[in-house]
Amino acid sequence: MTKTISLAHGNGGAENNELIRDVFYKAFKNDILDKSEDAAIIEGGRLAFSTDSFTVTPLFFAGADIGKLAVCGTCNDLAMMGAKPKYLTCSVIIEEGFETRELEKIVRSMKKELEVNGAIVVSGDTKVVPRGSVDKIFINTTGIGEVLQEGISSNNISCDDVVLLSRDIGCHGATIFASREGIELSSSLMSDCTSLYPIVKSLIDEGIKITAMRDATRGGVSAALNEWSKQSNICIEIDEEKIAVSDEVMGLCEILGFDALSLANEGTFLLAVKKEEAEKTMEILKSYNKNASIIGKVTDKHLKKVIINSAWGTQRFLDVPTGELLPRIC
Amino acid sequence: MTKTISLAHGNGGAENNELIRDVFYKAFKNDILDKSEDAAIIEGGRLAFSTDSFTVTPLFFAGADIGKLAVCGTCNDLAMMGAKPKYLTCSVIIEEGFETRELEKIVRSMKKELEVNGAIVVSGDTKVVPRGSVDKIFINTTGIGEVLQEGISSNNISCDDVVLLSRDIGCHGATIFASREGIELSSSLMSDCTSLYPIVKSLIDEGIKITAMRDATRGGVSAALNEWSKQSNICIEIDEEKIAVSDEVMGLCEILGFDALSLANEGTFLLAVKKEEAEKTMEILKSYNKNASIIGKVTDKHLKKVIINSAWGTQRFLDVPTGELLPRIC
Repeated sequence: MTKTISLAHGNGGAENNELIRDVFYKAFKNDILDKSEDAAIIEGGRLAFSTDSFTVTPLFFAGADIGKLAVCGTCNDLAMMGAKPKYLTCSVIIEEGFETRELEKIVRSMKKELEVNGAIVVSGDTKVVPRGSVDKIFINTTGIGEVLQEGISSNNISCDDVVLLSRDIGCHGATIFASREGIELSSSLMSDCTSLYPIVKSLIDEGIKITAMRDATRGGVSAALNEWSKQSNICIEIDEEKIAVSDEVMGLCEILGFDALSLANEGTFLLAVKKEEAEKTMEILKSYNKNASIIGKVTDKHLKKVIINSAWGTQRFLDVPTGELLPRIC
Repeated sequence: MTKTISLAHGNGGAENNELIRDVFYKAFKNDILDKSEDAAIIEGGRLAFSTDSFTVTPLFFAGADIGKLAVCGTCNDLAMMGAKPKYLTCSVIIEEGFETRELEKIVRSMKKELEVNGAIVVSGDTKVVPRGSVDKIFINTTGIGEVLQEGISSNNISCDDVVLLSRDIGCHGATIFASREGIELSSSLMSDCTSLYPIVKSLIDEGIKITAMRDATRGGVSAALNEWSKQSNICIEIDEEKIAVSDEVMGLCEILGFDALSLANEGTFLLAVKKEEAEKTMEILKSYNKNASIIGKVTDKHLKKVIINSAWGTQRFLDVPTGELLPRIC
């Protein structure tokens, strides 16, 4: 670890993993935490439990706001473990002088998104801090979900699985960046921020046996696939041309030198399912978003690595993102 | 509600109650939240669930630091509902440039205090924000506890109960204030920050049937007693001389015009038990702190009010604290 914490330590990539491993996991070490993925599985597999703090700026952006994001973020972490979001806590830290109307707007967004998940807020905390101690408002939500399908885990992916992606990537990261920098790309660029529980419920209701799921938030698809390759000790090979990227996101990436694969998403997820389940899974995903796609396969070519095949037949390793990326993206 | 949020809206007193009622409860309304006290009771009474964000400044102070406080605060909320703290989440928001060594020190304090509670951290989140977006570090902990004694509730206090206080008051508030202002009162002034689960476990193990418990945090004993009087529709009459205040805390209050009854505590709690249980309860409390005391009784003289009898025989209403009090006390 470096002597001070840098923005890179919150990027969802390599430095972030180092901070979590060397400071937090080292101290808090226990069996449940060791197995914890998007959420921890507790009470003998019956409940999922996850926390997330939201510091996004700006507070309001195309497609969502910090309130919607705060509910989606935590509920999605639960959904990715095959759990139905049930109870949330909501803890807000507000800067003195914050507009009550803006707060009410944020809370209304939360309420609306809670309804999509069929979840309720059961406990809360409200702190107000002097001007300058926090930038406007930070929100923590922590959720408990009821596990509907047991055994979903990033440790169980094998060569029998294929890797699917639920939609086109990078919309959240691109939207936040464009909005922050005052770049007007097009009116159709908006965050993908969405509750994933409805799709997960459809998959489970239709009898799909899910190997693993991961929403590609900070660090994007690159970070998520790399984590999978390490946790399951596999090689993931993906085809670049199968990964949908909208013209707006592509444009922004080209201008600014971003890699869409490392941009944050807030309603886009990866799935690993057995090959024989792939077709049926695709049908369900496509009914939610036409850009859903089977993006790759699992092999044993380079264990703990992700290989990306370009449209021109070349291959490269897709690395874990490093560096600052975009702070305060979520 | 006022047009903007002020520091008073986070004081644990009247304005704080207004913000919670008019903005959060209004939107999130549900049966569990309505009954929620220090923690929500979920899963048919089996589990307690509570959240707290910690913004205290300074981060290190006599008797504790933000890490110990973050574990005590949430575990105590669970303990006050008669629950054993079991699983915690830990979400930190760190300012870019924060010293890694200080972070490690904070995390070590958390680990130590988790052990006192027999609780584990099972899930976490780490955000790093640019300089100036947050003051050093804020920590959210959210906990799940296993309810050991059911039916503990601030709604059930009656004239058959007496009110007890576990120790002398105001130490946390006085310590933070003195430390922030650079006032050197005496080396013996230190925060009361402590995990209350061990005392609660002793009470339950000894067969005490607890009516209600409340740790007197923001807003102090005044806020807690006033909440009880309203929730149970009772009058609480307390004797000022029964409430222990150390010379150090009293000195600071006299110099600065604070009321010790409104100062925050972080390891001091109120209990309501039936009269016939009072003596046995006192024995247990005294084994932890000699300043424990039966401070008052429940009557129907002025419903929803707290009356304080002074040592000189005069009576006054003890009101809910209002105004700014001390921001960033916890």
